Formats: sequence, C-alpha cells, structure tokens
Amino acid sequence: MIKSYDSNDYDVIVVGAGHAGSEAALASARMGQKTLLLTISLDMVAFMPCNPSVGGPAKGTVVREIDALGGQMGKNIDATYIQMRMLNTGKGPAVRALRAQADKWQYHEQMKKVIEDTSNLTLRQATVDELIVEDGVCRGLITNTGARYHAKSVVLTTGTSARGRIFIGELNYSSGPNNTVPAIKLSENLEKLGFKLRRFKTGTPPRVNSNTIDYSKTEEEPGDKIPRHFSYETKDEDYLKNQVSCWMTYTNKTTHKIINQNLNRSPMFSGEIKGIGPRYCPSIETKVVRFADKPRHQIFLEPEGKNTKEVYVGDFSTSMPEEIQLKMLHSVAGLENAELMRPGYAIEYDVIDPWQLKHTLETKNIKNLFTAGQMNGTSGYEEAAGQGLIAGINAALRAAGQPGFTLGRDEAYIGVLIDDLVTKGTEEPYRLLTSRAEYRLILRHDNADLRLTDYGFKLGLISEERYSKFLAKKEQIAQAAQAVKKITVHPTKEVQEYLTSIGEEKLKAGVKADVFLRRPKVKVTDIERLTGMHISNERYVREQIEINVKYAGYIKKEQQQIDKLHRQEAKKIPVDIDYSAIDGLATEAREKFAKIRPETIAQAERISGVNPADMAILSVYVQNGRYQKIQH
Amino acid sequence: MIKSYDSNDYDVIVVGAGHAGSEAALASARMGQKTLLLTISLDMVAFMPCNPSVGGPAKGTVVREIDALGGQMGKNIDATYIQMRMLNTGKGPAVRALRAQADKWQYHEQMKKVIEDTSNLTLRQATVDELIVEDGVCRGLITNTGARYHAKSVVLTTGTSARGRIFIGELNYSSGPNNTVPAIKLSENLEKLGFKLRRFKTGTPPRVNSNTIDYSKTEEEPGDKIPRHFSYETKDEDYLKNQVSCWMTYTNKTTHKIINQNLNRSPMFSGEIKGIGPRYCPSIETKVVRFADKPRHQIFLEPEGKNTKEVYVGDFSTSMPEEIQLKMLHSVAGLENAELMRPGYAIEYDVIDPWQLKHTLETKNIKNLFTAGQMNGTSGYEEAAGQGLIAGINAALRAAGQPGFTLGRDEAYIGVLIDDLVTKGTEEPYRLLTSRAEYRLILRHDNADLRLTDYGFKLGLISEERYSKFLAKKEQIAQAAQAVKKITVHPTKEVQEYLTSIGEEKLKAGVKADVFLRRPKVKVTDIERLTGMHISNERYVREQIEINVKYAGYIKKEQQQIDKLHRQEAKKIPVDIDYSAIDGLATEAREKFAKIRPETIAQAERISGVNPADMAILSVYVQNGRYQKIQH
Ligand SMILES: Cc1cc2nc3c(=O)[nH]c(=O)nc-3n(C[C@H](O)[C@H](O)[C@H](O)COP(=O)(O)OP(=O)(O)OC[C@H]3O[C@@H](n4cnc5c(N)ncnc54)[C@H](O)[C@@H]3O)c2cc1C
Ligand SMILES: Cc1cc2nc3c(=O)[nH]c(=O)nc-3n(C[C@H](O)[C@H](O)[C@H](O)COP(=O)(O)OP(=O)(O)OC[C@H]3O[C@@H](n4cnc5c(N)ncnc54)[C@H](O)[C@@H]3O)c2cc1C
Repeated sequence: MIKSYDSNDYDVIVVGAGHAGSEAALASARMGQKTLLLTISLDMVAFMPCNPSVGGPAKGTVVREIDALGGQMGKNIDATYIQMRMLNTGKGPAVRALRAQADKWQYHEQMKKVIEDTSNLTLRQATVDELIVEDGVCRGLITNTGARYHAKSVVLTTGTSARGRIFIGELNYSSGPNNTVPAIKLSENLEKLGFKLRRFKTGTPPRVNSNTIDYSKTEEEPGDKIPRHFSYETKDEDYLKNQVSCWMTYTNKTTHKIINQNLNRSPMFSGEIKGIGPRYCPSIETKVVRFADKPRHQIFLEPEGKNTKEVYVGDFSTSMPEEIQLKMLHSVAGLENAELMRPGYAIEYDVIDPWQLKHTLETKNIKNLFTAGQMNGTSGYEEAAGQGLIAGINAALRAAGQPGFTLGRDEAYIGVLIDDLVTKGTEEPYRLLTSRAEYRLILRHDNADLRLTDYGFKLGLISEERYSKFLAKKEQIAQAAQAVKKITVHPTKEVQEYLTSIGEEKLKAGVKADVFLRRPKVKVTDIERLTGMHISNERYVREQIEINVKYAGYIKKEQQQIDKLHRQEAKKIPVDIDYSAIDGLATEAREKFAKIRPETIAQAERISGVNPADMAILSVYVQNGRYQKIQH
Repeated sequence: MIKSYDSNDYDVIVVGAGHAGSEAALASARMGQKTLLLTISLDMVAFMPCNPSVGGPAKGTVVREIDALGGQMGKNIDATYIQMRMLNTGKGPAVRALRAQADKWQYHEQMKKVIEDTSNLTLRQATVDELIVEDGVCRGLITNTGARYHAKSVVLTTGTSARGRIFIGELNYSSGPNNTVPAIKLSENLEKLGFKLRRFKTGTPPRVNSNTIDYSKTEEEPGDKIPRHFSYETKDEDYLKNQVSCWMTYTNKTTHKIINQNLNRSPMFSGEIKGIGPRYCPSIETKVVRFADKPRHQIFLEPEGKNTKEVYVGDFSTSMPEEIQLKMLHSVAGLENAELMRPGYAIEYDVIDPWQLKHTLETKNIKNLFTAGQMNGTSGYEEAAGQGLIAGINAALRAAGQPGFTLGRDEAYIGVLIDDLVTKGTEEPYRLLTSRAEYRLILRHDNADLRLTDYGFKLGLISEERYSKFLAKKEQIAQAAQAVKKITVHPTKEVQEYLTSIGEEKLKAGVKADVFLRRPKVKVTDIERLTGMHISNERYVREQIEINVKYAGYIKKEQQQIDKLHRQEAKKIPVDIDYSAIDGLATEAREKFAKIRPETIAQAERISGVNPADMAILSVYVQNGRYQKIQH
C-alpha cells in the first residue's frame, strides 16, 4: 500500500510536460502563480515523438499567436531549428506559413532549461494517479509516490500517454510514446469522476540512417536565405546560416502493391486498433486505400537533428509489421538500401470528449479543473501548445480569483480550435487547417502580434519593454498607412517604365500611393524609390501596409461578418437553461443543446445538426427572457 | 501471434546499446565484422542513469585501457565533459585517478552519433525476446517485432533492464531504468536455456534544481587548470576552459535520525527488495545503518549537464519513500530549500552468475554467445564498457574464425575484473577497486597505452597513424631512460641549493641522473635545468621516466610476482577433466572446480574456498598427465 502524505500546496498544478503542459506551466508561473509541473519523465519534456518540425499552414500561425500572447513555443523553435522555410510564398497572405525543422533533442533540452529557470515554477518527475475532488471542485491531486498536492486549480495535459498502447503489425503492448511508461490510473480516475473518455490513435513513420540514403534520387529542399522567425522577439542577426536540407521522394506502384497485399496485417485494417486516427495525418496505408487511383504519394526526408544521422520519413506513418515496413521503404527511390533505425508505430490513447469543456478549457463537470492538448482530442504540437497556453492562463486567473480569458474565432486560430472542440466535439484527432477558419484573411501569421499582444500584456505575459516596442510598431504602421494615402504617384517616365516592366498598364494620371499599391506586384519600396517619399524603413511595417491595401476588399468583407458574429455572441444563453422546457425544438437539437450547453446564440448556431428553425425557436425563447432553469 | 520473418544476417549482433553494448558493437564493426546493434530505445544509447561522471580510482584506469585498445569511452567523455579533475595527486601513481563530470545528454548524443557514423554497423531500435540456439550453439536471435536475425556470434549486454523493477518506498513497478520499458522475455528465454540468473539491485539518488541550492553552505570543487584527457588521442589545446564546479556538503545527525526512524519504510530493509545491492555503492540508508557511529557522510552536488539546472546528489542514493527523501534532503546544509526534481529509486534486475563465463566472456553453456556489463554482475559504466569491449572483440574474432583474446590480471584492470568475475563469481554488484589488483604499480593509468596499444593495433582497432605515434613515444621513453642512466649530476652550488630548497640532503659526490631522480620531489625538468642536458620535451615521456625510476623497487617486486603467475598460468588444466575422479580433493574444492572449471592452475588457485592441499593434489594430477575426461 502506498502511504500518501501532504506535500506542498500550489496555486496551479499542471500535469504533463509535453507541448501543452510546458506552455500552461510557464504561463501560470509568469502570471505570478506558484506553479508545479509534474511529468512522467524529465527526459521527455516538450519531446517530439513524431515529425521533428514546428509550423506549417495554420499551425505556424498558432505559434505566432502563442508568441504574441507571451508563450514559449516560438522562442524555443527559434533557438533550436536547423532549417527555416516560408511555405506558399507564391500564394496569398492567408495561407503563407512559416515552418521550421527542429533539432528534436535540443528543442527538448531548451524547453526544459527555460522551465527550470522560471521562478514560481517547480518541475518534478512524477506520475499523477488521482484527482482530489470535493463537491465538484478540484482541490489537487495525488501522485504514484503518494504525494498529495493541493492547489487552487489543476491543468491536465496527458497527451498520448493515457493508457497508451503501441501497435506494430501484430505486436502491441502497453506503453507511452517512444517506449516510455504509460499512465494508467489517471484515466480510471477520470472515468470514475464521470468524464466520457474515448480512444483515439495516431502514428509515426520509420526513421532511417542518413548515410544509407541515395539523395541523388531525391529532390532537395533547402532552407530560406531571407531571415524569418517565429517569435516577434528574435533578431535577424541570429538567423541560422548553415541550415540543413530536407529531401523529397515518392512512393510508387510497387510500394502501393506491397501495402495492398499486406493490409490484413495492418492493425488498423484488421480491426485490432479500435481508436480513431487523424483524417488529415493518415497513415500511408490509409492514403493508398483511400486514394486508390493516385499513382504516387510524396515523402519527405527530414533530419531529426544536427548531431544525428536519424532521418524522419515524413508522410509515411505506418503501423504495418516491421517486415512489411522494410519492404515498403526499400521500394522507394533513394531508400533502396536505407537502414531502418526505428520502425514506425501506431499508438492508441485516451482522450476526453471535448464538449465536456468550456471555452476557457475548464471542464463543465468539475470546477477548477482544466484540460489541454492531445487529450482534448487534437493532434499536433502547435494545437497542443495553443490550448496549453489558454488553459494555463485560465488556471492562473482562476487561482487569482479573476474572470476567465477566451479568444474568439475572429481573433485567433487558437480561438477557432477551441471553439470547434467545445462546440462540435471531435470524432477523430482534430488538426487545425486554414479551411477551419472563417476569417482567414484576418487571422494571418504576419499580424498575430497586432491581434494579440494587447492581451498578452494585460495578462502579464508580455514585458513592458516588448510592449513599448510593439506600440511603436503599431504607431509606425498607422503613420505609414497615412503616408500612402497622402503621397501621389505621378505618371513620370520612370513610373511608366516601371509599370511596363512588371507587366502592368501605364498610369493615365497621378494617383494616391495606396491606389497604386493595389496593383499586385507593386511593393512599398518601389513607391519610395519612384516618388522619393519615405513610407517606412521597417520590413514588417511595409508588409502590413502592402497586405492591408492589396486585400482591403476581402478584409472588409470578413470584418462585416465578424461584426455580425459579435452581435450573435452578445446574445448570451443563460447557464442553467432547461432545454426540455422549450416547445418545438427538434429532438436532435434539444439533445445537442443539452449536451454542449452553448454559451451564446453564436455558439449554438455552430453546433452541427442544428437547423435554422431550431435556432429561431431558441433565439426567441432566450430573448424573451422567459426561460426555465434546470430543476436540481 | 507475432509472425516472425527472416531479416538480414550479420557477423555479430550486440543486444543493448548501453556502455557495454556500445563498445562491443563499435569494436566488432571496426574489426571489419558486419555488426547489428539492437536496443530498446534509441534515446537511451550510452545513457547514464546514475552519476553523470566517468573515471575515478581504478575506473579511470579502465577508461584509459579501453582507449589504448581502441575503444570509445575515453574519446566520448573527452568530447562531452564539463569538468575534469585528477584525484589523489598527492598520493602514489597507482591510485591517481582521472575523473570527469559529463554532460549526460551530450554523452549519449555523441556516442549515438559515432555509432551511426561507423561503417559495418547498423543501430536499430528493437527488443530482443529470444535467442536462436541449435545444438548448444547460438545462431542468432528474434526480436519482439518478429525479426529473425542470424549471426556468427551474439553479445548480450542487457544492463538493468532485464525484468527491471523500480522501488520508491512502498511503491514498486515493472520498469527499465529511467522509466523506460523493461525487457521481460529474454530473461525467461535465458532461464529456459539453462542459465542461472539471480537478482541484483542498484539505486540512484534524488536530483534537485541548482537554483534552489544554497551553495554558500557547501565547499566548492572546481575543475583542474592543467589539461588532462582520458584518450591518448585528445589534444591539450582542446582542453575545456569554462569548467563547471561540483560542490560538497554533509549529512548530519538530523539526516541520520530521519533515516533511522523510517527504515521500516525502506524497501531494502523491509525485505521488499530481494536483490542484492552494491557493497561499495551503498544507499545512504545502508551507510547510516552500517556505520552507525559516523556523525556525517559526504555528499557531492554534481551538475548533470551544461544546459540544465538538474543536480545529482552524489552518495545519497536511496529508495526511501519520496516523503522521507524530501525530509532527508532538506536536513542537509545547502539543501534546506532544494526543490526535488526526480526522486531517488532502487532498481532490481536479472544478472547471469558470471562463473558461467569464460575469460573471453563467452558463455560456457552456449557457444558463440557472449555477455558483458551490468548483466554479468558488475556495477558502473567503466566496468561495463571494459567488458563490452572484450566481448565485442571476441565476438568479432569468433566470427572471423580466429582465436580468442583475453587480458591477464598483470596486464590490465579489465583483466582483473573479468578474472574476478569468472573465477569467483560475485555475490553482489561488483565494483572495481584498486585493492582488487595485485599489481597496482604496474596497472597504472599513465601507462595503459604502453601496456595495451600493441594489442589494440594487432586487433585492428588502432590506426596505423596512432600506432606509429605510439611507437615513437615508446622510443622516446627508451632514449630518455638511457639518457638518465648516462647523465651525471655534479654537486655544483646550484644543485646543492636546489636540494636544500626541496628539503633534501646535499650530494656528497656526482651521481647518475637516475639515482638523483629517486629523490621524491625531483623532476626530470629539474635535472635538465641543473645539468643543461636534454632528456625529453614530452611531459608524458618525462612522467614515465619519473615513475619508473622512483618506484623501481616496487615495480620490480611486482614483476617477480607476475613471473611466478605466468608460470602457474602456463599450467593449463584440460578442458574436459573429471574432478570426481581425482582422489583426495576436499568436497568444497571438488564442487567449485567442477562448477567454475578453471582454465589454468593459476586460476584454480584464485577460487575462494580452495586450500593449498587441494591445489597440490590438482597440480600433481594435471602435471602427471594422468587425468580422466568427463563421461558424456
Ligand atoms: C507516435 C505518435 C505519432 C504522432 N503523430 C503525429 C502526427 O503525425 N501529426 C501531429 O500533428 N501530431 C502527431 N502526434 C501528436 C503529437 O505528439 C502531439 O500532438 C503533441 O505531442 C501533443 O502534446 P501534448 O502536450 O498534448 O502531449 P504530449 O506531448 O504527449 O505530452 C504529454 C505529457 O504528459 C505526461 N503525462 C501523461 N500522463 C501523465 C500523468 N498521469 N502524470 C504525469 N505526467 C503525465 C507524459 O509523460 C507527457 O510528457 C503524434 C504523437 C505520437 C506519440
Ligand atoms: C538506478 C541506477 C542506479 C545505478 N547506480 C550506480 C552506481 O551508483 N554506481 C555505479 O557504478 N553504477 C550504477 N548504475 C549502473 C550503471 O548504470 C551501469 O553499470 C551501466 O549503465 C551498465 O552498462 P550496461 O551497458 O551494462 O547496461 P545499461 O547501460 O543498462 O545498458 C543496457 C542496454 O540494453 C538494453 N536492453 C536490455 N534488454 C534488452 C533487450 N532484450 N533487447 C534490446 N535491448 C535491451 C537497454 O535498453 C539498455 O539500453 C546504476 C544504474 C541504475 C539504473
């Protein structure tokens, strides 16, 4: 029998030091709350069990948002990347995306060091077995060594460790990611506390030794020369000079044949894996089956770090038996003689159905208990970190007796992510995509600071120094925006020649610089050169002016939609409304409303399976103020 | 059911990439054998689950021996240390010892990288479940993913993972070191194959956050200014400039009281742990009980790396409940407010009784199967690495059809270690101590290259380039030795003043430099200065001359003992002798001989419990050539 004992008390306790937990704990400690971060293994803090990279479409924007709110992920990847690339530079600003290849072990080491050096924060290796809950309020928790910690609020971020089970073909065994010990008892405790858990699964591809790849058969993807960073605080002079390359190759008919012939040995197809996998990060076997007519699929060869020969075989996630994985690998151009270092595997784990959460990520069921990350049904480091930050902020606010903090769908991808989770739940590991955001042109990676730094500062997560720099930048943007409205571009010979050179029609008469700037290829610097007038020296200021001017029409349209959204959001639904008392609601809508308990009319509208008639009934009912409370 | 499949064939397969397995695999691959290294987690290659340091008395000499034989440990620590210190500089050359504090994660990363970059060597993550044995010969093995690998020889180095079980007070659970998954099935297989296994245990102390230590209450131990290295190949200019310090503090009466009051909660004292612990690395609770009258015990505070605040609380190993560990820690000066990062724990694991091995580390039972490291009943990284190197060399020689390689007790600490293991077995985790060596003045750290480089070169583990440098050094030593015999030191005024200044008697007449050098404080450079004659520019050459001259008498005595040993070793005992047929042997001697099956009269003599009368009978019996074979 484990004897339990009273250990220290904390304001906030965070369970799990993955990507979610690290952000949560740092935010809480930086907000002045005495914080404890407990995790199963200190050697796996902010560990990347899958792709050694951060960013990409939507996800990269989340990293910027985290940074603007005073989180750590952007700074951490800026300190440890080995390649940086801006994706989709040819496309519009809404889908441009920064992506960095990480030195996976340095990323871990750096995050751990930052945590160790943060005041108010204690990092400790421990496995949490049980929550202390009294009258529906979470008061702390108990670890496997018997330590009883009390706290004002608790954040759970258990990732893929909760009752984790690894699958490689016919082989399966109880394990956390990367052959670490799993957490078993906490899941049992959550079920006893009334939470609905479900099984999800995710997978990772094999790793191979770089020295055994024939790169001549692959296509190189080098890093960018132009310096770019995730954090708004990182300086251009710190941009990494010697970047490593990634490489691209393809599956082929032989690969697909090997997969098809062995589907019966895949635990995903044989039915051994019950957990539901991520639609947007499918295994290679799923892709081959789902897109049977595609002759080939891209594969990325990504180095896992500076000081290792391990290479991640991106987009080749699989839970096939090792024997088949080897055959699959060796059928690919460049990998004919590749030496396998680690086989791919799938992992099944427990998640909490996220409709059990509020927008603050507090559970509806138990007060002062927050959950974040993969355990809320998402997939991806960035999604985890974004949630972790919000949960950590709210846990800290709760501990300080202050009201909660939430982000709207119109303010941040993080807002979209959380609203999707709590409003719609998720039937599979949820991944952020640009298509999930209604206001893509407003939720850009380049303006995350403009959208969110004010919040970060008010929360105490952005320093005075950084904030005053931010205000200066805002001021510069305002000035530059004024400048382009005032400057006139005249149809001089030079201007006309320039327009011809970029394939644009000549000017008929002088125009204001902002009108001139609407032409797609025109840059602010061109206007400065042609007119001799000064607009801004700052590349990030010029970028804002260019985007705001060129996309003004679209942005305005999105802004109008947002205004409408705000009106709907202003219509709050009373917390204790009794849906069974509303006449005329369709059964499905009634059940969904009762389960999800939307906070506003806007949120109710977004619940899937709710039709306009139901919304009309609900709106009228709420607006009349004639609602009934649930009978306790 | 796991389907097994035929994977590649190898010359040599090594199981486990700890300190033993890394050396074994590197040696085998460098000797030209196609080698496979399988290990449970690639993130734990050459991982240090306990003290983040390499070297110390006897152990440091082993590292030098490994280096002289062409092994990796010396180079790896030279590339990743954060502090280097020569211990016992005030004492004789036999006990001087180099010791380095490691950056534990860099040590792992560096060793993994070297392995990844070695040709003929494949590193793969896999758990070995079963050996393939046919007619008493090991032919390969099978992993948990069903891969069937064939090989000419196999080396097992399973460390503390074999049926590992972690203990922290009343808590215990199945686990490898550091919360990794343990290996269960291989132990069962070894038992089925007829090996006698037993349970040993070892323990590790808590780790605390450096920022929470009050160093003003402790004593600093800085690194050395004089450059020294483990590898004979490392250059002085690479000596680390910014070294970190270690710190020393003590337990006290309160600490001891806390321990004594809670002994019933220690799994070592309550009887929960059945495995036997290391006598020379005892837990703090064992020390407090065993040395009840000692008022305090030293504690060392050792940083775990450059980029972390984790500090190892050396000599404070414990498996007390976490609650008690905290109290114990906080009772120590400087640690009053220390934040625990990881609790200490004990781990119980399977070892193979080492009398089941030959001096080549091949098992007597199963041909072509070798074992090395902690699983042979030792404790310590260096002991593991030394054995790993010998096992790897022998596995490679076997694969190449060549005779085995062994080291005598007079040649190396590694020889002492292995002979102790196979001749005496061990009742507890075996640790090397200088007192275990009979010929301490010959087995010095400074002459490991002179003792062993020839072997390393002949085995193909030392490059031509390094070997010719080594020969040049040997030549320089010979010349310098000649020089000191020839040079005369005259009783000049300068010489007499010098002697007075070092507190020595004046010369009566001129003497040869070697006689002059026998005076304890005289250095070769003093003689060069006083006589104007050249002896050597090389500090390592001068060092040899000084030691050889000053300790000539002792060294000669040891050499005579070694000659006697060699005569006894020349008396081989036939492999298939039938001890039951020898009249007059005491029962205990007969049983021990039959179990251990000594290879020579010298080895038979070292078996504990064998008395001179038995030896006389055995010697006569063997010398007469009238022996009987075992009846099969
Ligand atoms: C095999 C695999 C493949 C993946 N593939 C992809 C992919 O293709 N695409 C993608 O976007 N994402 C993928 N992921 C997901 C990605 O790893 C996660 O989204 C991300 O790590 C989630 O961060 P997190 O903080 O929620 O959880 P984690 O990073 O898993 O961290 C959770 C932490 O909590 C600790 N913990 C758990 N329970 C306890 C407890 N009871 N007490 C104390 N500590 C506890 C764990 O030890 C761990 O350190 C994959 C993950 C795995 C394991
Ligand atoms: C908690 C703890 C405390 C210790 N305290 C001390 C101390 O105070 N003093 C001291 O000198 N030494 C101590 N040690 C011992 C030291 O760690 C070992 O002596 C040293 O690591 C042994 O090296 P090795 O190569 O034999 O084994 P390890 O370093 O343990 O390496 C064995 C490797 O084999 C792998 N493996 C095991 N089984 C299989 C399998 N079936 N298939 C594939 N791979 C497998 C493991 O994963 C591991 O990587 C301690 C060890 C631990 C765990």
